[in-house]
Order: sequence, then structure tokens, then C-alpha cells
Amino acid sequence: MLIIISGPSGSGKGTVVKQLDAGLGYALSISVTTREPRDGEVHGKDYFFTTEEGFTKMRQENALLEHAVYVGNFYGTPRNYVEEQIAQGKVAVLEIEVLGALQVKEKFPEAVLIFLMPPTVVELSNRLKGRNTEDDVTIEARLKKSLEEVPLIDQYNYLVINDDVPRAVEKINAIVAAERLRPKRCSHEINEFVDSQKYLK
Amino acid sequence: MLIIISGPSGSGKGTVVKQLDAGLGYALSISVTTREPRDGEVHGKDYFFTTEEGFTKMRQENALLEHAVYVGNFYGTPRNYVEEQIAQGKVAVLEIEVLGALQVKEKFPEAVLIFLMPPTVVELSNRLKGRNTEDDVTIEARLKKSLEEVPLIDQYNYLVINDDVPRAVEKINAIVAAERLRPKRCSHEINEFVDSQKYLK
Repeated sequence: MLIIISGPSGSGKGTVVKQLDAGLGYALSISVTTREPRDGEVHGKDYFFTTEEGFTKMRQENALLEHAVYVGNFYGTPRNYVEEQIAQGKVAVLEIEVLGALQVKEKFPEAVLIFLMPPTVVELSNRLKGRNTEDDVTIEARLKKSLEEVPLIDQYNYLVINDDVPRAVEKINAIVAAERLRPKRCSHEINEFVDSQKYLK
Repeated sequence: MLIIISGPSGSGKGTVVKQLDAGLGYALSISVTTREPRDGEVHGKDYFFTTEEGFTKMRQENALLEHAVYVGNFYGTPRNYVEEQIAQGKVAVLEIEVLGALQVKEKFPEAVLIFLMPPTVVELSNRLKGRNTEDDVTIEARLKKSLEEVPLIDQYNYLVINDDVPRAVEKINAIVAAERLRPKRCSHEINEFVDSQKYLK
């Protein structure tokens, strides 16, 4: 299964995703990037580092589920890595921006899209200000963007209000538990039921 | 929300439905029937009792979500009662046969259909035999019908294997928790987010 956790900047995507319990089968996706590794960052753990040529080649070969530019560097989600996790029965988790999420949905219609939203715009504003990393103009632009993204929520499968991280994680766990019960994901159980008729006396 | 628990005779629908916790908002639907009340049965609690004329009138007025004949008596699901429960924010629960469930889905496309299935046909056979209420011919017919119903599972939203009642109940709780997070059921939260911008300084 592939789940995509998306939502406005400041919705708490990163924090929530880090709390998803690997013991429950979650496997966080690793992005490909052209930016330089920072101290301590490990290839294949934090990122897959590549050159611009390598990145362009991946794009051309349809090896990326989505990609974006940020501060002059390319970032993308490698299809291969995600498909490997899924083949191993894991719940692959992508944490990406709203438009990227909708890009992936097109390539991967079975993906489960979860929109993470702060309870109010005021709370979002407080969180962004609390980070102390962005100036007022940037924050205002982010708030405006978060409101513009609201009509896109309809294209998502689920909406999770992130008023409390453990509660948001619990909701995501319920979504995954429910999605595992979709008939299309239960062919093994269905076949087992049908096949068992041969043991009837 | 309306959830429909359906599945072959012997899947344990009745037992599972009785274990759904009213504290979590579940409200079991009450059927309309033309059969005579048995000792101790209360109108409006066990059944809504009515005459054949009353039943036919309800049918003609589209007041039934589904209906069926069983041993010469009519049984149906009153639309009114279900809609009242939903209006009160309850999770209305119907426990009905497979074809009835698909009838309701047509009239009520938002209904969440859950197919309850025993793990194997052998287990189903054992359960039916254990009841000691049906002869071998009837049991064989029920087993055959359960296999014929398998292709209909695709028309359901979820499949729950009832290998263990508490586990099946837990899965239904997860389904309801997840379904509450559908964007179409979250317009209150979405409006709250948008409206809160007026409090931005």
C-alpha cells in the first residue's frame, strides 16, 4: 500500500510521519535530490544523492513518481524504491506537497491520499511564526496558499486535522487498518475461502 | 453515516453487530415486519410491526431501503428511522443479506458496505452444523450460496474476515473511524479552517 501524507507547510507532516510506527509496517520513502549532502547525511538513508544529469535521466525514464524544484535543487520520489517497499508488504509513506501528491495519484491511482490540516489558520500562523525561520511576507504567502489549497481536499481520500500529533497518528493508523480491508487488497483471503471448499466432507 | 454489515448466513453478522459499542455512536436499525410479535418482543425496539397493507403502502411510498420475504412474512428496512439516526450523528447499522445490501447501496450511495466472511467454507459448514437448526440439504444450499456470493464482494467497500468476533469488531471500528475522515464528511472542519482566517491579526 502507498499512502501519501500531504498538506500545507506548517501542518506538521514531518512530525507526524516520524511518529508512524515501523512496527506497524510503515516504510518512509527516501527522496532523490541533486543538492549536496549535508554533514552526517547518508546516501540511501536520508536521501539518494544524484547529479542533475542523473536526475534528468530518471525523469525521462519515468522513474520518478513526482518531482519539484526547491531553492535551485531538484527533489523527486523514486518509483523503484516505493514499489520495492510495497512488494515487501510494507506501507510506503510519502510526505510531499499538495500538488506533488496529486501528481502521484495520477501515476498511482491506488495511492491513499491523506490531507493533513491544522485546526485553524490562526494555529497555522502561530506554528509558522514559532519556527522563527521565515519572515512575515513568506508566512503570509504560506497562509494564503493554505487557503487556496482547501478546494483540492476533495481530491484526497481522507482529511486528518492535526490538532494533536498522537491523535493524528492514531487516525492514520485507522485509515491504514481500514484500507487493508479493501476487497482489492484481500484477494489472498478471498482465494483461501473459495479454495477451502475442497476440504468439505 | 450508514454502515451495512452483510455476508453469508453463518458469517456471524448478528453476533458481531450486537458487540458494536453504542458508546461509539452505533445505532442498530430496526426492521419493519408483517409477522406476529413473539412473546416479549416490543414494537419500536425489536421490530416495527405492521400489517401487509401497511407494508405495501411503505413500499409504494419508497419508505423502505430494502425488503424481502422470508417464510411468508415481509421484512424491510425503514428509510425514516435510518435517516433519523444519521441526522442525530449516529452510525446507523443495517445487518442484512447480500442482495438487500446492494439494493440499499443503490438508494443510498454513501452507505458503507462491509462484507463479513468466515475464514473458510469448512468453518462456515461447522458453524451452520453447530447451530443444529438446519438439515444437511439446507446447509449444503447455504454453502453453495456463500460461494456464489464471492464475486459480489467487489461491490462492497470492505471485507472483514470473521475469524474472531472481537477482532472483527475492532476492524469495523477502524473502518468507521476512517470513514469519518472522508472529506465529504468533514465540511464542518473545513469550514472552521477557512472561517478562522477572520481572526488573523
